Amino acid sequence: MAEVHFSNKERFRDFMESFYQYGGTNDGGMHRLSLSAEDGHARDHLVAWMRSEGLKVSIDPIGNIFGVLDLAGPGAELVLSGSHLDSQPHGGRYDGAYGVVASCEALLAIRERVNREGGNARCNLGVVNWTNEEGARFQPSLLGSSVHAGLLELPYALSRRDGDDISVGEALKQIGYAGTAAGPSAAAYLELHVECADVLERAHQHFAVVTHHWGAVKYRLAFIGKQAHTGPTPMAEREDALLGAAHLIIKLRELADKASTPLHTSVGRCEVRPNSPNVVPAEAILFIELRSGSQDTLDRAEQEMLAAAGEAAARTGTRYEVRSVDRRPIGFFDRKMIETVTQEASAIGVTTVQTDTIAGHDAVAMLRICPSLVINVPSVGGVCHHPSEYTSPADLALGVEILTRTLWRLVTEA
Amino acid sequence: MAEVHFSNKERFRDFMESFYQYGGTNDGGMHRLSLSAEDGHARDHLVAWMRSEGLKVSIDPIGNIFGVLDLAGPGAELVLSGSHLDSQPHGGRYDGAYGVVASCEALLAIRERVNREGGNARCNLGVVNWTNEEGARFQPSLLGSSVHAGLLELPYALSRRDGDDISVGEALKQIGYAGTAAGPSAAAYLELHVECADVLERAHQHFAVVTHHWGAVKYRLAFIGKQAHTGPTPMAEREDALLGAAHLIIKLRELADKASTPLHTSVGRCEVRPNSPNVVPAEAILFIELRSGSQDTLDRAEQEMLAAAGEAAARTGTRYEVRSVDRRPIGFFDRKMIETVTQEASAIGVTTVQTDTIAGHDAVAMLRICPSLVINVPSVGGVCHHPSEYTSPADLALGVEILTRTLWRLVTEA
Repeated sequence: MAEVHFSNKERFRDFMESFYQYGGTNDGGMHRLSLSAEDGHARDHLVAWMRSEGLKVSIDPIGNIFGVLDLAGPGAELVLSGSHLDSQPHGGRYDGAYGVVASCEALLAIRERVNREGGNARCNLGVVNWTNEEGARFQPSLLGSSVHAGLLELPYALSRRDGDDISVGEALKQIGYAGTAAGPSAAAYLELHVECADVLERAHQHFAVVTHHWGAVKYRLAFIGKQAHTGPTPMAEREDALLGAAHLIIKLRELADKASTPLHTSVGRCEVRPNSPNVVPAEAILFIELRSGSQDTLDRAEQEMLAAAGEAAARTGTRYEVRSVDRRPIGFFDRKMIETVTQEASAIGVTTVQTDTIAGHDAVAMLRICPSLVINVPSVGGVCHHPSEYTSPADLALGVEILTRTLWRLVTEA
Repeated sequence: MAEVHFSNKERFRDFMESFYQYGGTNDGGMHRLSLSAEDGHARDHLVAWMRSEGLKVSIDPIGNIFGVLDLAGPGAELVLSGSHLDSQPHGGRYDGAYGVVASCEALLAIRERVNREGGNARCNLGVVNWTNEEGARFQPSLLGSSVHAGLLELPYALSRRDGDDISVGEALKQIGYAGTAAGPSAAAYLELHVECADVLERAHQHFAVVTHHWGAVKYRLAFIGKQAHTGPTPMAEREDALLGAAHLIIKLRELADKASTPLHTSVGRCEVRPNSPNVVPAEAILFIELRSGSQDTLDRAEQEMLAAAGEAAARTGTRYEVRSVDRRPIGFFDRKMIETVTQEASAIGVTTVQTDTIAGHDAVAMLRICPSLVINVPSVGGVCHHPSEYTSPADLALGVEILTRTLWRLVTEA
């Protein structure tokens, strides 16, 4: 095994831990909602580091932060590596932040090797922090990378509002990240992420490459009833929007349970109006997700979901309206990058497991504009989006090392 | 039949119609929201009448208006009669206003009889207009009577805000009804109201006495699951609090549908945490109400609801917690007053139907501090809170006559 210590474990660990002060919670978790004060401080910390390391920093209008190391001159292609600093509410410390910090360490290690060995590099190397990957505070998720990849219009993205009616544009200004630069174009994008699943743990392996991502269909679907007093209104005359919604929530779970190929269904958010204890709900908006690795399964589930919504409405004297639909097709990550990563892992004695990803990653958006890839290290128990999310220091260091070696190949061979 | 014309039908009709100019709509309805300009003008009209008739007028800090006729001297007990001048948005002309105007007519007729027959009266007689009975502009309903009865704190009541963020306190000042007097204590309270139901119409009867009001059991009940990513988390490992809640919402409706005696069930409010589109809900808090006129039914429904919560939790891998329980017992209106009213109706050949009320009336609040009673005349088609609300002139006059005769008994016999 050659150069197991290309990257610097201790330096990575220290920089990783330095981000915990911005939103870290006492239970070991992380509460750093996109564009919150905590996110602003974490961004400041990252940008200060980029500047102190002499990177060329640019911030685009959706707040994505790019730091580019000039290895091969201004005209050279760019290899980009990164992830996101935002977290779920009371989520974990590794999801997203790990990929950003690992990219920073890889960049330092690669610069050191270039300085040591001379001018091998053919590409420049950049680190990126994408805005609002999580989609917790603002919807949709993958907001920053989707704008960068041209999948979302900037004005639409800036006008998204949180539960307190604050827009993305307003929140960016509040923390000083309403940039004006155009983000740099990348020739390749690599993203290291904790697995958020237990495939590696069950296989007793430590490293995975993601060959493709599941497709998703996301609906905002409203049941409309009639506002009435919960006291005297006869039961037969009620048009209860929440009751209609309850029928659909249960049916969605049944769709997943009976599917022959894996299908994940969920209702993560439910908005009830007027949401007063003694008023029959006039409106209940469900945020529905259907996910599958099979397009057939996804299409069939969508049709069955709409049929079930119609039945739930008929049964409860309500009606339903589709407020928005967002369809993300199944996508295949870059085959050549998969080969390179697999070789580099093998070179240090690590077996590469091939897996798919169910969750969205910024690499899913980037796949639309350049060869992209997601690589994983294990999540203990598969836990993610929860304070108990955990990856061992050894696995974290292993991921950083494979990332560093792969980025070296990409910047020297491209 | 003795003295069918104790009260003066024409004088009552003219005074009743004089209130239509304050918020009456072209379709025969009434739009006189609590503490609006229209309500202010209607109040001015009432107070001017009270003053012109020599009543002692007092206005308390929540804007309740009392006008007291001194029949038996300053130390004597008070018999109070009234209702409310506020209406629902685009509601009807009879709900509330009828009871206030009828009480005015009864007071005049009783004073005439006292003047004619000499000093029989042992009690004084008062008319009251309660603030915000409807709960349409400001919540909760029964606001003025609840403050008077000590069921609500005054500062809380004054701080309630409407949809335009105007508080009760501000609205009272705007129309000049932020009084400073203490409302007088009553020894008995009688309220004449249109039925707002069709029990009388179906029974081909014209007069009802309300024997009791429904009881209510209100729960805040939380389902507790586990926060997880809606993408990768295997369906079998999910502990979805909202799914647990959905099962209970449906079961609550079934409890009402299968109950042999009337039972009303509802979930008006649902709070989901973290309520993020791509996070499996960790908590869903339901605001549950069970209402019935039968204590047995209510008790059984509560037990079945808790059993159903346990089943819903077991089925979805969640658990449930009761966060609060509020039990409002079934309330029985005053038996002696019911006897007196029934005798007085019978004396003019009218059969008294016994009924119950689901919704609050101001008499429900007053029942906490003195013997109280609600009496009803028919509503055509049971319609209420709608411009087509209607009660015939004959039924209106009949109610006024029985009210007058009963108040005579109360002030002379108490």
